[in-house]
This record gives sequence, structure tokens and C-alpha cells, in this order.
Amino acid sequence: MIAWQLRDKRVLVVGGGDVASGRIGHVLAAGAEVTVVSPRAGLHPATKQHIDASDRITYHDRTFVAADLDGADMVLTAIDDVAVSRAIAAQCRALRIPVNVADDPPCCDFYFGSQIRQGPLQIMISTNGRGPKLANIIRRRIEESLPRGAGEAIEKVGRLREKLKERAPGVGGDVSRRRMRWMVDLCTAWEMDELALLSEEQMERMLDEGWEKDSVLSPEALGVGS
Amino acid sequence: MIAWQLRDKRVLVVGGGDVASGRIGHVLAAGAEVTVVSPRAGLHPATKQHIDASDRITYHDRTFVAADLDGADMVLTAIDDVAVSRAIAAQCRALRIPVNVADDPPCCDFYFGSQIRQGPLQIMISTNGRGPKLANIIRRRIEESLPRGAGEAIEKVGRLREKLKERAPGVGGDVSRRRMRWMVDLCTAWEMDELALLSEEQMERMLDEGWEKDSVLSPEALGVGS
Repeated sequence: MIAWQLRDKRVLVVGGGDVASGRIGHVLAAGAEVTVVSPRAGLHPATKQHIDASDRITYHDRTFVAADLDGADMVLTAIDDVAVSRAIAAQCRALRIPVNVADDPPCCDFYFGSQIRQGPLQIMISTNGRGPKLANIIRRRIEESLPRGAGEAIEKVGRLREKLKERAPGVGGDVSRRRMRWMVDLCTAWEMDELALLSEEQMERMLDEGWEKDSVLSPEALGVGS
Repeated sequence: MIAWQLRDKRVLVVGGGDVASGRIGHVLAAGAEVTVVSPRAGLHPATKQHIDASDRITYHDRTFVAADLDGADMVLTAIDDVAVSRAIAAQCRALRIPVNVADDPPCCDFYFGSQIRQGPLQIMISTNGRGPKLANIIRRRIEESLPRGAGEAIEKVGRLREKLKERAPGVGGDVSRRRMRWMVDLCTAWEMDELALLSEEQMERMLDEGWEKDSVLSPEALGVGS
């Protein structure tokens, strides 16, 4: 399993019913540009609401035509006609466009799973299409067990990593490895709720007094959380 | 974020060092067909071991050439030369082949994140490349909090769903919705460690005496776990 980023990807949704509306909400939240193809008569109220509310949806009031695939990075079908769904999936395969056919796991190149999002932290629970309801139950348990401030900690660590890359630039090779090691030392020594509290100024001190001397300062030394 | 299935996909790995060896292990475990391109002198011992041990790896003892992209479903680069990495990424984009460039998040169409696997249950923790170490820490916490028998429960529920589809076939429409509702009722009424214990025979009884009468039997009624 790999995590695919949908930001600015062009996603075609064939269908406008209940299931389609959920998919549309999902890919919109992930930052995709969405095209919806479905006769207006078949639109679920939630789908109508998405179409009315978002300027990142292009809507066509008709059934699917092959030209809809032009420029699509990804295709989702959620229509009741199995033969049509599978024909669209076959066209996508031929064009190497990843496709998901609702309620037909063997026809899918990818799955949505159940997700948790906390800022840059994303957790996906997938059952390969086998147990969507169980995935939801597991998602709730995981939500309850997440360390406090996890999303914020990742945000701060990402910011610190950017600053470090400006100070010690270069991708690959020794500098890359040294940066990686230092970041690992920091993340191991600090608790997540401490990392979450790091200020810009404390990051700079951490680089000046830590990185430059090949060591990691403690939260206490930086006055974090006090 | 979506979960991408790598089973039988053709994955090209450019590079053979430490990072490449980790990637190779990851995509092999996910069932991919792997091609590794890297001069033998640069192979990490772990990469050598993968190449020797797996019949799903094709190895080329040389640097990357454009023709390596022919037929690739996905490309991973893990080499120290940034200019070459980025040139490969650009070629992949032009050919619409998803690419991941190690240690260069903005150049990636997807990320690996940190993963948990229990049979059909897959959990991915992604920080959009911002905090790989924190992703690992969060992974360990999640592992500790997973309900007992989660993977097995998903396996059994998937099996029951297949049986149900044989009994009440059809994709889309009313029958699809009725099946979905019944499965949700079941997964809500039963605990995960109970679902994990379902036998084939109990599944059949569940369908005969539950589905056919539009109800869900309790674990006690089926004698599960007793």
C-alpha cells in the first residue's frame, strides 16, 4: 500500500448518487479538481450541494462519454449499471488511468479506506475493500489512542526540517544522512506534545546550539512548555 | 489520500543503496514485480540479498536509461544525484507514471509512510514526507491499541460478504444496498474478537437463519466462542 496525494489531481466521478456524493466529498477534501458526470435526475441532494458549494467541481448533466477520460488522473465510478462500470474500468486500464469501481473490489486499482486527518498527519485504514464497516470501527479506536498533539508535532518537525535544509542544503549523500540522523535523534528524545509546542525562535536556537554542535537540546534547555 | 494496491504492478527502482533496499523490501512485500537498475558496485548488502532471494526481481547492473520506463507502473528513485533524480521524475510525469524521489517530498506523487499489516488489514501512517520518524512512533502506539483479532475479523467478514454475494447476486441498486445494510448491522452487533471466530458452517447458518429473515443472529445464538 502506498499513500497517493490527490492535491490538484483531476478526478473524474461517474455517477451522482449517495455513494458518489461520499467520494466527491473525500476527493474534494484531499484537494482534487473534480469533474462529475451524471444526469441531473440522478443527483443525490448531497451531490447537488457539493456541486453548488465548490468551485473545484465541473458538472456535466449527461451520461458518461469516452472523451470524459481525456486528461483525467483518476476515475471513480459509482453507478448502478455494472456493465457500464466495467466497460469504463477497462477503458481506464487501457489508458493507464487508475480507477475505482464502487462495490466491486476486484475492479479497483485503489481503495479509499477509512481515514483520520490531523493537519499533515494522515492515517488510512484499508481492508482491501473487504470490511468497510470494520475499518470505521478500527478508525475510531485509533483516534482515541493517538498521542496528544501528533498533527501539530509533525507540522513543527516538518518546519524544523525545512530550516535545517536551508542551513545544510543538498539532497542525497552525506549531508542528507547527517540531517536524517539528527532529526531521528530529536524525535526520539522529545515527547510528541513537547515537539508540538516548539516556536520558530526555539527552532532557530535548536539549530544554532544543537545541530551546529552535533547534539540535540532537551525541551528543558530550550524552555519548551515552561 | 488513497490506498494503492501494488500486487502484480511493475515497479522500477533506480538505485541500490540503503534507502533503495528498504523500498525494495516494501514493494516486494506488497506483491509487486520489481526491476532494479543500479551499478553492482553501489549495491547495499541488503539490496544484494533481495536480488538473490526473490524471483520477482529483475536486476540490471548499470545506470538508468530512458527505456527502463517502458511498461513501468510506478518508479522509485533512491540515488544521490539530485539532477538525475529530478530528470527521471520529469520523464515519469510526461509519461504519466507515478514517481517517488527519496528524500525529496515535493517531487513525489506518493509516499510510503509507515505501515501496519495484519492479514487484509492495512494501516498507513503518512506525514506527507514531513516526519517519517514521528510516523514510526505513532505506528507503534497504534499497534498497541488495535482490537484483538482485527485482521482475522476482516478476513471472516470478507468471506461472509462473498457468500452473501453468491446468494444475493448483483452489483449496484437495491440488492447492493440491502447487503450493505445487513453487513453493517452485523459488524455493529458483534465484537471484533467474536467475528474473528466465525466458522464456515456458522457463516452458512448466519445466512440461512439471519439474512433470509432479514435479521442478524447473535454470537450466542450461533454458539460462537463457546
